[in-house]
Amino acid sequence: MSASELSTQDLNSILAFTVALARKAGALILEGSEAIQSVAASKDVNEKKNSVDLVTEYDVRVEELVKTELNKKYPTFKFVGEESYSAGSRPPLTDEPTFCVDPIDGTTNFVHGFPYVCISLGLIYRRRPVLGVIFNPFLDHLYTGIKGQSSYLTRGNGQALELPLASPPKPLPSLSQALIAVEWGSDRGEKAITGKSSSFARLAGDPAQNVTGGKMAHSLRSMGSAALNYAMVAQGGLDLYWEVGCWPWDVCAGIVIAEGAGAIVTGSHDVFAATSSNASFGNVTEDILTGRKYIVVRAIGETEGETSRQAQKRIIQEFYSTVEDVEAN
Amino acid sequence: MSASELSTQDLNSILAFTVALARKAGALILEGSEAIQSVAASKDVNEKKNSVDLVTEYDVRVEELVKTELNKKYPTFKFVGEESYSAGSRPPLTDEPTFCVDPIDGTTNFVHGFPYVCISLGLIYRRRPVLGVIFNPFLDHLYTGIKGQSSYLTRGNGQALELPLASPPKPLPSLSQALIAVEWGSDRGEKAITGKSSSFARLAGDPAQNVTGGKMAHSLRSMGSAALNYAMVAQGGLDLYWEVGCWPWDVCAGIVIAEGAGAIVTGSHDVFAATSSNASFGNVTEDILTGRKYIVVRAIGETEGETSRQAQKRIIQEFYSTVEDVEAN
Repeated sequence: MSASELSTQDLNSILAFTVALARKAGALILEGSEAIQSVAASKDVNEKKNSVDLVTEYDVRVEELVKTELNKKYPTFKFVGEESYSAGSRPPLTDEPTFCVDPIDGTTNFVHGFPYVCISLGLIYRRRPVLGVIFNPFLDHLYTGIKGQSSYLTRGNGQALELPLASPPKPLPSLSQALIAVEWGSDRGEKAITGKSSSFARLAGDPAQNVTGGKMAHSLRSMGSAALNYAMVAQGGLDLYWEVGCWPWDVCAGIVIAEGAGAIVTGSHDVFAATSSNASFGNVTEDILTGRKYIVVRAIGETEGETSRQAQKRIIQEFYSTVEDVEAN
Repeated sequence: MSASELSTQDLNSILAFTVALARKAGALILEGSEAIQSVAASKDVNEKKNSVDLVTEYDVRVEELVKTELNKKYPTFKFVGEESYSAGSRPPLTDEPTFCVDPIDGTTNFVHGFPYVCISLGLIYRRRPVLGVIFNPFLDHLYTGIKGQSSYLTRGNGQALELPLASPPKPLPSLSQALIAVEWGSDRGEKAITGKSSSFARLAGDPAQNVTGGKMAHSLRSMGSAALNYAMVAQGGLDLYWEVGCWPWDVCAGIVIAEGAGAIVTGSHDVFAATSSNASFGNVTEDILTGRKYIVVRAIGETEGETSRQAQKRIIQEFYSTVEDVEAN
């Protein structure tokens, strides 16, 4: 195939290849997890020290496996990942097909043996996410999506289930009915932590019991994997997910899978304010993809007075008027 | 068997019966979840209204199934659950064998189709938790334990794995290395929400970046099921779980499973202060079981200078000096 022209057939073929690759990477992640848990538990002091090295080692091994295989099969495609950004430089996207991969999403979970870990394998084309594969090898849950098509969940050897699982999608009258994913993230400075904890408190708090601005959401969940949070919003098991501080490779695959399930993705408070009344609302531009602030809201059942898009906009409006515009560091 | 004398053989037999019952209840929970998701998504207004009724209906159906079958098989055993407390009265425990069951733990998750839901089936004998079965039908994860024996995880049709999965258990130098489960709970008043959110912020915050008292824990997780949090601590995938406001039936089974995996369970700040230097430390008395404040810390690998119990005590000490003594309402 030509690197600069991707047909639907090309995308279907890339999906088949990347699904097989994600399963192969998943097997390596499982092997790594067992090795890490066993070495971490060792009484031998030298072995214990190796535990941290092992995490790095498997992170590198999974990334190398994925890069090598992708490069062999698609030598003209570019690649964006943590490594590309590590020198402080942030290469701009091009129109070329570009894999955008987090080899192990949920690294803290991986280290601890908490089984919410996945490989997140996305493809960007003409600066837009167009394909996503998320695979959690611990639970054998595979999520897939191609831009413009439906998204699917395959559990174990079961059949692929179209997302969201509830069809037509469920209603969502307000945040007070919502199950919301949030994360504490890696920025633990005073500003980020205060901004997040006070925002979370308002989401959970009861305005009738003196929590000013409280929304009394059904509850808040924190699983520790951005990609799996996107997948769960696509599935309909979470109503929305708000994130500040993660990177394109954490969300690229998830964006495609969520969108294919009728969810909407947009960026920061400012992006929402600037686009929510435009036709471009819900269009994940390069700025949004690399903007490190994201919100995703699941498909919402239409009513006579409101489309799914209108309902999603209403929910984001309510959400962003509740939480602070925390900075991404 | 006599109701007032339970042998190890009796407990093994009760475990076999309750595991089969938990799987049967799990099938009903799955059926309920599908019905609820499908009715919630219905465009028919009358059907939509039925969604809330359906949650109650399945909650009652699962509870009735469990109570009926337990009562048929063990007619002399008592039963404690939400219903027993609902009239405001809190019947004291007796020395008799008493089932302590949450038919659907993680009700909010159940309503939303978020697959971290379980039946939690515990047995109290002589006022102490002695047997626990926790089954998540969405993931087909079964956790079992009998007081004085090892605890096990059985995934799907796999073999029963002894807990914790890492053997010997991993070390835990301080909270800064810990993955901690916390929950927002159902008390959303100003006191509870402020107490929890500021405690969570200190656990996550970096003292070197102006978070006073910050512990910079690896991270915080919130899954929405007390029983499954206990199970994950037993497994070793979470280092500790702190809870204020839940009930004996939420934790009874989990306590046995966690203890069988070398974890320690105790109660509030006050209970810890009063017992941590006693031989009774780690003994889950009736006061702790019904005290609505709980902390559980996983098995910790011994070092030359420290036993697992000493390390657990050190971690609880550090934890309770960090979080507020939030009231349970």
